[in-house]
Amino acid sequence: MSSDRKKWSIRSSDVAKRAHNPIRQIVDKLKLDPKATKEFISLSVGDPTIFGNFNVDKSANEAIVHQLNTFKANGYPPAHGTLAARQAIATKFGVPEAPLTANDVIVANGCSGALEMCLNVLCDRGQNILLPRPGFPLYASLAETRYVETKYYDLVPEKNWEVDVVQLEKLIDSKTACILVNNPSNPCGSVYSKEHLKAILAVASKHHVPIIADEIYWDLVFKGNTFYPMATLTTDVPILSVGGLAKKWMVPGWRVGWITVHDRHGAFAEILEGLLNLSQIILGPNSVIQAALPEILLKTPESYYAGNIKQLELNTKISVDAVSKIPGLSPVKPQGAMYMMVGIDIPKFKDISSDVEFSQKLMAEESVLCLPGECFNYPNYIRIVITPTVDRLEEAYKRMALFCARHHK
Amino acid sequence: MSSDRKKWSIRSSDVAKRAHNPIRQIVDKLKLDPKATKEFISLSVGDPTIFGNFNVDKSANEAIVHQLNTFKANGYPPAHGTLAARQAIATKFGVPEAPLTANDVIVANGCSGALEMCLNVLCDRGQNILLPRPGFPLYASLAETRYVETKYYDLVPEKNWEVDVVQLEKLIDSKTACILVNNPSNPCGSVYSKEHLKAILAVASKHHVPIIADEIYWDLVFKGNTFYPMATLTTDVPILSVGGLAKKWMVPGWRVGWITVHDRHGAFAEILEGLLNLSQIILGPNSVIQAALPEILLKTPESYYAGNIKQLELNTKISVDAVSKIPGLSPVKPQGAMYMMVGIDIPKFKDISSDVEFSQKLMAEESVLCLPGECFNYPNYIRIVITPTVDRLEEAYKRMALFCARHHK
Ligand SMILES: Cc1ncc(COP(=O)(O)O)c(C=O)c1O
Ligand SMILES: Cc1ncc(COP(=O)(O)O)c(C=O)c1O
Repeated sequence: MSSDRKKWSIRSSDVAKRAHNPIRQIVDKLKLDPKATKEFISLSVGDPTIFGNFNVDKSANEAIVHQLNTFKANGYPPAHGTLAARQAIATKFGVPEAPLTANDVIVANGCSGALEMCLNVLCDRGQNILLPRPGFPLYASLAETRYVETKYYDLVPEKNWEVDVVQLEKLIDSKTACILVNNPSNPCGSVYSKEHLKAILAVASKHHVPIIADEIYWDLVFKGNTFYPMATLTTDVPILSVGGLAKKWMVPGWRVGWITVHDRHGAFAEILEGLLNLSQIILGPNSVIQAALPEILLKTPESYYAGNIKQLELNTKISVDAVSKIPGLSPVKPQGAMYMMVGIDIPKFKDISSDVEFSQKLMAEESVLCLPGECFNYPNYIRIVITPTVDRLEEAYKRMALFCARHHK
Repeated sequence: MSSDRKKWSIRSSDVAKRAHNPIRQIVDKLKLDPKATKEFISLSVGDPTIFGNFNVDKSANEAIVHQLNTFKANGYPPAHGTLAARQAIATKFGVPEAPLTANDVIVANGCSGALEMCLNVLCDRGQNILLPRPGFPLYASLAETRYVETKYYDLVPEKNWEVDVVQLEKLIDSKTACILVNNPSNPCGSVYSKEHLKAILAVASKHHVPIIADEIYWDLVFKGNTFYPMATLTTDVPILSVGGLAKKWMVPGWRVGWITVHDRHGAFAEILEGLLNLSQIILGPNSVIQAALPEILLKTPESYYAGNIKQLELNTKISVDAVSKIPGLSPVKPQGAMYMMVGIDIPKFKDISSDVEFSQKLMAEESVLCLPGECFNYPNYIRIVITPTVDRLEEAYKRMALFCARHHK
């Protein structure tokens, strides 16, 4: 036989062509003006470490240094994670209403890697997945590279971004593999009530559709709100919950995430086995951090988490106060996580016709970068990351006010 | 619409069902006898760290501790790796005949993650990939989960596991996406000559088929042998070379690997872009280790590498000498890496009918675990990992001799 090929012409695979990051594609157009004189302020990346005000607790570093110095945590961990790491995750995240053992846990390459495995195990080519709109864009990217159709249920800004449950139910069909629920939410900063989560669960239960609960912002909620892990609210719906170190421990670069499997009626027996199979292929995250995970999850002082929440609450207040005063902008007050969605009243502006144009011009004129809602499949909004230092935030909002005054009709 | 489902019945995806690790399936049958009195000795896992005699150089730990203490390497790195990490890889692995810049490098989750990306970008569903037999089983696992057909070219034990190049050429057809070449080889421990690598390249060149060169055992070669990076031997064939920290730096658990893209005639333009797309989905390995990578790659003292080679050479000599003397076994002398293939003359044994049975009984009776050749698609051989301490190795071979004497006709 022969290759038939007469010259070098190597096409990338269809999967590689489908792989894309919508944020990247949009952000690439939001270039800093090379003539810009104002210092660049990014309110765009969900990375709380870049301003120096949110750091991992030093006890975590100490735990890692200890493990490094033993020279005993450098070998291959089991593909789904070391027993000690899985046990620590089960201890930290298990509760009486949704208990966990180490066998219910799979360690993954970040919460992104955990999400990839969940989609991979639950969804077959040609099935569909229900995703939130607005929502974290990785969900759709993962679905598209797997030929899984995406269907969107709307979050309602006037109801603190609650799910339109009636619409959600209508979207379900015989090819619906699962519903993805993200609470607390990126990009909304919303935190759902127990009642609302139960309403979503009732739909899943009625149609026997399992849930992927993206709970990476676990417990990152502000005063007056309570975080309810979805699995604690149902004895009927099987749930894969995903989380990670990235946000609560302020180390997105460490790339440690996990899946906790909340089976109900044994419905997930094949799914757990499938996840174990999938974990064999690439193996999980860094072994040294896995070895330190019990210390990190179980020994980080409570004051560390409280301090982060306090800072986020202050930044939220500053953000809501400042942006509320800008004509043409309407912030939706966040209840948790590290983001704020801001509506743009496009008709009130004389020379801005979309959220993308708003972000582009704000960047070009004021060197302030916010992601347009388009990145999250939700036009006419921008998303602000509220983790910068107070002085950076205040400076950014001052510039934003000048910018809006200039472009207002 | 509705889901049609009247009860909870959740099947795992076809991809998850295809995902499997052949080693795991076979090894699960090789259980330690609970009544075993002899201490267990594993010659089975390609993890040089488990016996305490192969450790990472302490300068690597120091580089990591330094980065941890800055609190500045905890954020998201660029999806394809930090510039400094990619630059260090380009500097370490680029040579005049196959130069590299940071832009030719993609950092990945271990060499396994690098291989996954290479297959993903080069192979479409329904195409085929040519793999070595015997060979590292991950290649086939990756292909199968992507619906890529596997075709095997034989390595010839009598010729130090050289490729049967005539057969290789015959396997190529219009659906052949790429040829995977692993040198130095797991499980063979072979190291190819310049001439032999050129013969393989000539086939690839003639048929315009690109190569994935798995070079994770880069430079891990014993006296009298030379390692030639495949990309240095061709100005015509585009090559994706993969590597990682796992073996040369003795830290398989750290999960840091990379792809270096050796384009020729611009044939890989789409491939490079596809790899960048794919990297966006999960992001790469731990940011702290990426930050330390320039130190690790460029500042580890030469004596460290030399010391490892010396230990491996000694262990190889002990292994070849001991196993050569066992009637019924014929070792193929390794030239590099950390493995030795041993032929089993099955007809010479009275109650052993296969390599799997040999491994099973050896484990049950002597608590010594070797992987049967079946794990590498190559029956009638076993693979021995030669990284244990000298005393463990000698004890293992002593027991193996007793075992063979007992079962010999
Ligand atoms: C909702 C949500 N899920 C998952 C992730 C990915 O987390 P990781 O960095 O652990 O991959 C993010 C990161 O921003 C997120 O906002
Ligand atoms: C030939 C070969 N390629 C790739 C790998 C995987 O390397 P990593 O541990 O970096 O994923 C191994 C590990 O044993 C190997 O032997």
